[in-house]
Order: sequence, then C-alpha cells, then structure tokens
Amino acid sequence: MGDQVKSVRAHLAEVPADAALILSRPRIRWLSGFSGSNGFALIAPDVAAMFTDSRYTEQCAEQCVDFDCHTLSGPLFAGLANFEWSGKRLLFDPEVVSVRDKERVERHAPGVDMVAMAGWMNPIVAQKQQDEVALIEASQRLNEVVFERVVSGIQPGVTEREIAAEIVYQSLLGGADSMAFDPIVASGPNGALPHARPTDRRLERGDTVVIDMGCYQAGYASDMTRVLSLGPPSNEFRDAYEVVRRAKNEAIEHAKSGLPASVLDGFARRVIEAAGFGDNFVHSLGHGLGTDIHEWPRLASTSEDVLPDRSVVTIEPGIYVPGKWGIRVEDIVVLRPDGCDNLTRVPDDLRELTV
Amino acid sequence: MGDQVKSVRAHLAEVPADAALILSRPRIRWLSGFSGSNGFALIAPDVAAMFTDSRYTEQCAEQCVDFDCHTLSGPLFAGLANFEWSGKRLLFDPEVVSVRDKERVERHAPGVDMVAMAGWMNPIVAQKQQDEVALIEASQRLNEVVFERVVSGIQPGVTEREIAAEIVYQSLLGGADSMAFDPIVASGPNGALPHARPTDRRLERGDTVVIDMGCYQAGYASDMTRVLSLGPPSNEFRDAYEVVRRAKNEAIEHAKSGLPASVLDGFARRVIEAAGFGDNFVHSLGHGLGTDIHEWPRLASTSEDVLPDRSVVTIEPGIYVPGKWGIRVEDIVVLRPDGCDNLTRVPDDLRELTV
Repeated sequence: MGDQVKSVRAHLAEVPADAALILSRPRIRWLSGFSGSNGFALIAPDVAAMFTDSRYTEQCAEQCVDFDCHTLSGPLFAGLANFEWSGKRLLFDPEVVSVRDKERVERHAPGVDMVAMAGWMNPIVAQKQQDEVALIEASQRLNEVVFERVVSGIQPGVTEREIAAEIVYQSLLGGADSMAFDPIVASGPNGALPHARPTDRRLERGDTVVIDMGCYQAGYASDMTRVLSLGPPSNEFRDAYEVVRRAKNEAIEHAKSGLPASVLDGFARRVIEAAGFGDNFVHSLGHGLGTDIHEWPRLASTSEDVLPDRSVVTIEPGIYVPGKWGIRVEDIVVLRPDGCDNLTRVPDDLRELTV
Repeated sequence: MGDQVKSVRAHLAEVPADAALILSRPRIRWLSGFSGSNGFALIAPDVAAMFTDSRYTEQCAEQCVDFDCHTLSGPLFAGLANFEWSGKRLLFDPEVVSVRDKERVERHAPGVDMVAMAGWMNPIVAQKQQDEVALIEASQRLNEVVFERVVSGIQPGVTEREIAAEIVYQSLLGGADSMAFDPIVASGPNGALPHARPTDRRLERGDTVVIDMGCYQAGYASDMTRVLSLGPPSNEFRDAYEVVRRAKNEAIEHAKSGLPASVLDGFARRVIEAAGFGDNFVHSLGHGLGTDIHEWPRLASTSEDVLPDRSVVTIEPGIYVPGKWGIRVEDIVVLRPDGCDNLTRVPDDLRELTV
C-alpha cells in the first residue's frame, strides 16, 4: 500500500475519524494515481476505494492498483451505501465539498457524522515523498528544455502570443500532460502586470520580457520565471533586476522547514524595500506545488503557515513599475530542517539576447 | 445594462429573492465579461457589483463597465458588509458554493437568509443572446481553420501526441484564449476509448483517427469531432461510419427547442441500435456549451431536461468497438422552436487522406 494512503490513515487516527472523503482531482491523483475527470476516493483503516463512472472502469483498475474500484452508472455517492455509516465519523474538507455534495453524502450514508476540517490534507500533501520530488524535478527539467528551445528562437518582430504558443507546443511535444497554467509572456510595459496574458505586441530591440511557465508531467507541476532582454537593457532595469535576484537568493539562503512562511517572505521583501521598491513588490513570495500548481503553504507577509519539511515551494519576488516594465525571478526549492535544495537549473541572470 | 444582468434580475423577481450570489468563473464571465481568476458577483434590483483582489483592479474596471468593482485586500466576502442583509433573501447555487464559502457569506452578511436553488442559472445561461451565438460561431470558425490546417499535415509516421500539440499550437496562434479541453487524437484501437489521451503511437497506413477538439475564443467555447482515414478504411468501418453520421443527422433533423432532451437522444440512439451497435454507443448524445464547454442541458436517455430555446448544444453520437476502433461525429447546433441551425461547416463525411 502506498505511503499516501498510510499517511491519510495516520491522520484519521489522530483526528479521530473513521473514514475520509477525498474529492479534489489533484488530491485524488496524489492519493491513488487516478487521472480521470470524475470520481472520489474513500479511505478508512481497512478501506481504500475509488468511485468513478463507466468511462473510467479500465483506467481506474490500471492506475489505482491498491484500490477497490467501483464504477457506478448513477450518482457516484450511491456507492457509499456499500458501507455501514451509522454513528461513523466521516472527515471532509469544507473548502472543497459543495453544499449539494455534502447533502448527497448524507443521503447515501444515513446516520453518518460529517466532520468538517478545512485544509486537513494540506500538511499531509505538502510533505513530499522522495519519488514525488523526483517527479517535480523531471517536470522542471522538461520545463527548462522547453525554455531554452523557445528562447533560442526569440528575435525582434515575434509576438508575445507566438512565444506563448511555442512554449505550449514544445511542452506538449516534449511529454507534458498539459500546462500547469497559461504561460505568461509579458514584454516591455506589459511586464508590469504580474498576471499579464500574451498579446499581439511585437517584441522590439531594447525590450525586456518576463516569461513565467510551467507544465504537468506524470501528474506533477513545474514553475519558473525568467527575464530576457533584447539587446542591452537600461541601467535602471539592470539595477532593479539585480535587486530582485538578490531578494530571491536571500530568501533561498534562509529557506528551511520549521520557519514561519511570513518570515521567509520578509527576507526577500526587505531586500526590495531597502532598494526603494517596497511598493512595487505587489504580490506574495510564493506557494507550494505538487500535483496541483498552487498548494499550501502560502508564502506571504500575512501567512500564518509554518514551512513543512520536505515541501516544494516557489520563491518568486518581483518589482513592477506601471507603464514601464516588470521583473520577476522564480525558482522552486525543496525544504529541509537545515536549508533547502534548489530544483531549478537555468541560470538566474538577466538573459541578454544578441539582436 | 447588459441583457445578462436583466435576465438575472427577472429571475430574482420570480423566485422571489432580494439578491443573487454568482461564484463560478464561466458564469462570472457570461454575466460581466470579467476573465480574472478570483472574484464573485452580486446582483440585486439596484446592484450589479464585482468583488475581486488588487491584482485585478484595472482589469475589472475595464471589463465590467456596467458593474461597481470592489477590490479587497483581505477575504473577498468581507465586501458583503457594504450592504444591509438582515432578513434579505440571497439566492445561491449549492452545486457551486462550498460548505466553507457558505459559512463565510453568512459571517459577512449577518442575518442573511440563504436560498439554495441547484442550477438556478442553467435555463438563463442556456438561452443565448444573438451576440453570444455569433461568438460561439467565431470560436468554431477558428476551430475549423485549425482542423483543416492540421489535417493537411497528417501522414503515416506522425504520432497522436504530435497532432494534438499541433492543434493546440495553431489554436493559440490563431487567437484562442486557451483550449476548451485537451484535444483527443485517438488512432486505430485507441479510438475505442471515448476519452482517450494522445499517446506516442505512430499513425500507419490504414489507420482511422478520431479527432475531438475545441477552444475558447473571446470567452466562448467551440467543439467538433471528425474521423480521418489514412488510405481506404475497411468496409466494416465505412458502414459503421455511415451509421454514426446518419444518427447525428437524424438527431439534427429533429432537434428543436421544447423537445425533451431524452427524446432527441432517442432519435440518434435508435439509428445505432437498428444497425446492431446499441451496446457500442456508450455515452450520451451531447451537452450545452457557451462560456463553459459543458453546460446544461444534458442530452441523454436519462435526462429530464427540456431543450431550451436559443440554446447551443453538441450532437455527438458514437460507436466504439474495444480493441478495434472508434467513431464519433459531432456538430454544434442552435435550437429554435421549429428546428435548429447547424453552426458546424466542416463536411461530416469520413475524411479519407491520400497516403
């Protein structure tokens, strides 16, 4: 039986609860390997069961080798009637389960005692197994190969949209399941929008370009941001870039499990504040990632999370000057009690293209 | 004020309720034009408000011209405190709202009376405005241009994955916001899986290929399935293809608003049953589409939905023979009381490539 099921069972003993209901797709993937679009999992001390529909009968049996796979033609939650629920405590995450689904569970599991714990899986999912870290690294290796391939084709006259399409194309050709998010390719003043969407703007000599990209491969996410310059950038930009890079590296030097996430955010933020750009770092430092591109913990000044051991998190400070330009540099690291390992290999310097 | 807001207000008067809470992204897009990733909308007789975070302040003001845009730095639902809620009836969809979000609303809107109606927006969203049909048509035109471009490059030796990557690439280059779903490119025996994912299988002379693809453009989805053959197919396949095509066209000939969706499913299903393939049509006939790729109504033998006027739905029967091949042919149509208009222009014959 996989470590994931074991860790959920250990949590059940702690709560205590008799069983756990798991509905979110990335968590089902994490728990069982199932990659279909419809289904839920049920874990108890003596139960590891997947419920899905007839489209996925074969796939469920193949992917979820340690699970009993139930395929239902009607409502999936009707599968709960196979178990005795009277007086049993069923753990669920009220952030994930809809009001209607909770009613459905209660109807199909008469007498059940629903135990709501928001984010109960977060700390379990955050502590990555060794093979999970290897899968995130492999996803990031692909992400980096694609980055280098796409960057080698960038020249004045190409549009943001063309670069973004090329990133997706090369990722899918290279073996990605799908993108972890739509790539951000933000040139010149568009770089000042942290969540810019690619436009038909043509790159010009002297432009700087923020590229933020990541894919899913074998179910695990990657994520990286780098900045290019078409020819030499202004001194102002070059200086600001070094501030962001130092902020990122200052955070990475101090990153370790057991540290409050807000403290780590502070290490990066102080570098940017000291350079006079405090108001221009308009977002938080980073987030966890795994089978979901955005996982707990949240690395922010307002976060109350403590960084979990063996979690993989992004470190991505930025400076944004509206109407002029933007800069963000992002690596992913895996945390240990005495530090962290950087999973990103692409050099973090400003990539100056000869044009 | 847009027709969308008007139709929600008319519904509020009918329920009756004092205000409506709208949380799902495709519905927020439909209602207000907002395309950001975080936010909710509130509609009352004298209120049309969007609540989002500071990343989207500018974007919200640009996209939601008829809305009051509130940007919050803390919890979004805190924005509800701007209104008086005591004894007011707030309509929400329990299929969409999580158990936790419902609690948050109740905390920030003290005294509110939450009115749960599952799927209350379905009939409103289903009845498309003329400009919405035009946007779906435009999305489908792009989908068709991409299909023809990609098909022209298909020859023996290319993999399913390469074809799928090319579909995504050409869609994004052509102006798609994103894909409506990961393209299905299922060759030879892989075609027997209705939800196959592209593999590294190389196409061979004599293979048949099911291609199911669709994108979002300007927020609206497209969807189409066609079948190719690399050289002449077997007579068995050719005959089965004609059965599926006749099933699709039989449904389209009878499609009109006011008809029970199960009756329309029956028109297609009987053609396939009469040919002896009843057990091989393993899914339902189709689904609505709009700002979401899967919308109400559900066109299935078990559906209790009645087809709404001006709704856009897919008609996509199929035959799947495990281990051998699959066939699905899919058009999209807009329904009128006296029939329907087919929005799909690509010929529905088996596309036999010269190889």
